[in-house]
Amino acid sequence: MIALDAHGADGGLGVIAEGARLAGLPVRVYGPASAGELEGLDVADAPGFIGNDEEPVRAVRSKDDASIVRAARAVSAGEAEGLVSAGSTGAALAAAVLHVKRIRGVHRPAVAVLLPVPGRDILLLDAGANNEVRPEHLVQFAYMGSAFMEAVRGVERPKVGLLSNGEEAGKGTPDVKEAHERLAGADTNLNFVGNVEGSDLTGGELDVVVTDGFTGNIALKAIEGTSRTVVRAIREAVTSSPISSVGGLLIRGRVGRLRDEIDPNTVGGAILLGLRGVAVIAHGGSTPEGIANAVRLAQRAHDERMIERTQRALEAAGVLRSAPTGSFDHQ
Amino acid sequence: MIALDAHGADGGLGVIAEGARLAGLPVRVYGPASAGELEGLDVADAPGFIGNDEEPVRAVRSKDDASIVRAARAVSAGEAEGLVSAGSTGAALAAAVLHVKRIRGVHRPAVAVLLPVPGRDILLLDAGANNEVRPEHLVQFAYMGSAFMEAVRGVERPKVGLLSNGEEAGKGTPDVKEAHERLAGADTNLNFVGNVEGSDLTGGELDVVVTDGFTGNIALKAIEGTSRTVVRAIREAVTSSPISSVGGLLIRGRVGRLRDEIDPNTVGGAILLGLRGVAVIAHGGSTPEGIANAVRLAQRAHDERMIERTQRALEAAGVLRSAPTGSFDHQ
Repeated sequence: MIALDAHGADGGLGVIAEGARLAGLPVRVYGPASAGELEGLDVADAPGFIGNDEEPVRAVRSKDDASIVRAARAVSAGEAEGLVSAGSTGAALAAAVLHVKRIRGVHRPAVAVLLPVPGRDILLLDAGANNEVRPEHLVQFAYMGSAFMEAVRGVERPKVGLLSNGEEAGKGTPDVKEAHERLAGADTNLNFVGNVEGSDLTGGELDVVVTDGFTGNIALKAIEGTSRTVVRAIREAVTSSPISSVGGLLIRGRVGRLRDEIDPNTVGGAILLGLRGVAVIAHGGSTPEGIANAVRLAQRAHDERMIERTQRALEAAGVLRSAPTGSFDHQ
Repeated sequence: MIALDAHGADGGLGVIAEGARLAGLPVRVYGPASAGELEGLDVADAPGFIGNDEEPVRAVRSKDDASIVRAARAVSAGEAEGLVSAGSTGAALAAAVLHVKRIRGVHRPAVAVLLPVPGRDILLLDAGANNEVRPEHLVQFAYMGSAFMEAVRGVERPKVGLLSNGEEAGKGTPDVKEAHERLAGADTNLNFVGNVEGSDLTGGELDVVVTDGFTGNIALKAIEGTSRTVVRAIREAVTSSPISSVGGLLIRGRVGRLRDEIDPNTVGGAILLGLRGVAVIAHGGSTPEGIANAVRLAQRAHDERMIERTQRALEAAGVLRSAPTGSFDHQ
């Protein structure tokens, strides 16, 4: 069963409910049991809500009736096989770290996103959880992303690149350079291809790109924004005269299919990696189909034993932190 | 007269020579005087060349006959009104800092780029000169970029944003947060709109976006790569069946014009800001028209007194460094 947070979608409870029905999988919705929209669904009462404007850690600690907190607890208690939320990323991250907890020895969880670009799937991480990271964090991200692509997307020996401002090993900030050195000397279970550039994010040659959360967030949003801008400009070019609108009509179906390919709703959302359970964050603007895809992604991650495979990969590489994990050192 | 570096274009001397002819402005080409391709042009003999694989500062210091060094010296001697190079950005930056020199009190020059996206021009800086910057550098970049857009592109009160992973003032790395505070308290000559996100780079609402060179380089290349990938995917969608290829034929002209709009060749290249002279770096892959546009950009920057206006804006804001400028503290 997947625990689905009823709160946080721009479209309200109705979108979540419709997504739960569409998913075709066992789903329990965590939200206000009295809400009419949720009628007929498996609902666990959780009337509280954590908004984007609240300080996530404090809110998670104080609001025990919040839907995201209850969903995270269901995962840690083994009642749910994963959680899905379309609400605040910060709240989901805080609830997951506090209740689902990190894999022992993981420094920081990462937000990983399948980029909404045509062609080959590329996983970008961290896409926003950690503004500043140390080299050892980037090294763990590489293994976490590789394990996800192998387990959940069925990619054999995923090609992992380190995002920098040049392909040469000496390019980048001091932290990136040190991460490069460590990754280049990593065990043969990691298929590290070296530094990659911003243009490689959409180049179709890679499976995983590792970076800090500040750069990753900006790169992700730049890619989303550029896709939207270019598709819109082409649509306007196509429909801006009677003659070309005939052309527009003829190609509409094909461009529509392409738009599906670059639509974040088809991807199913971001996934939190480095935790002891599965947590997927859907876009706030998700359609019901987007919510359903997020639920399917969470279920697949559970069924393919992503957590165990991640843990094994990190252990085998010897990159887990040996000191005891602090209770909550996540920013 | 604009000093044009003959070396460095992927297309060789022929592309540079053709660009010089196309520009329609007084151009002196710095390169091997004996080369047949340069016949008929105003040539200053400079047979030496600095490649992408050389350490820029060392190469600029040791190769006095290098074309980029001679071109930079022509600017500092007042013989040329600006320089244009399609060669190594690092070499051009080093030659410019050593010979053209920074405006007194400027911490770091920045590479500024007009983003190749449809619609409103947006200047991104720094796009690659400085991997790591301090808050006071970001503050200077804001004034430098604003002065460029006002002087060279005729934008009144350019809207300046600070690139971060969220619009709220509290988002970003510690350096970004501090830069935000300083910019928010800046004089009224700067039209600072606050933090902006990666998606705003192509959103058409801004004129200048300020960031560090690592993030800027990655964002720029992500945007270029996404534009290419989406345009290619649409072209393939349009031409992949007999029926839709009729559509493709009908819209080809319009999409072609759009492609011109997102082609780096139409922009004219990157411009180095914060120097005592005009320096434009064209794409290595420039066409002759791209080189000609870079020459025109350099000439316009000179004619519109960009340097003086930048200096005045920095002085009026009180953000120039008061201590004497070191000889070469640029990384």
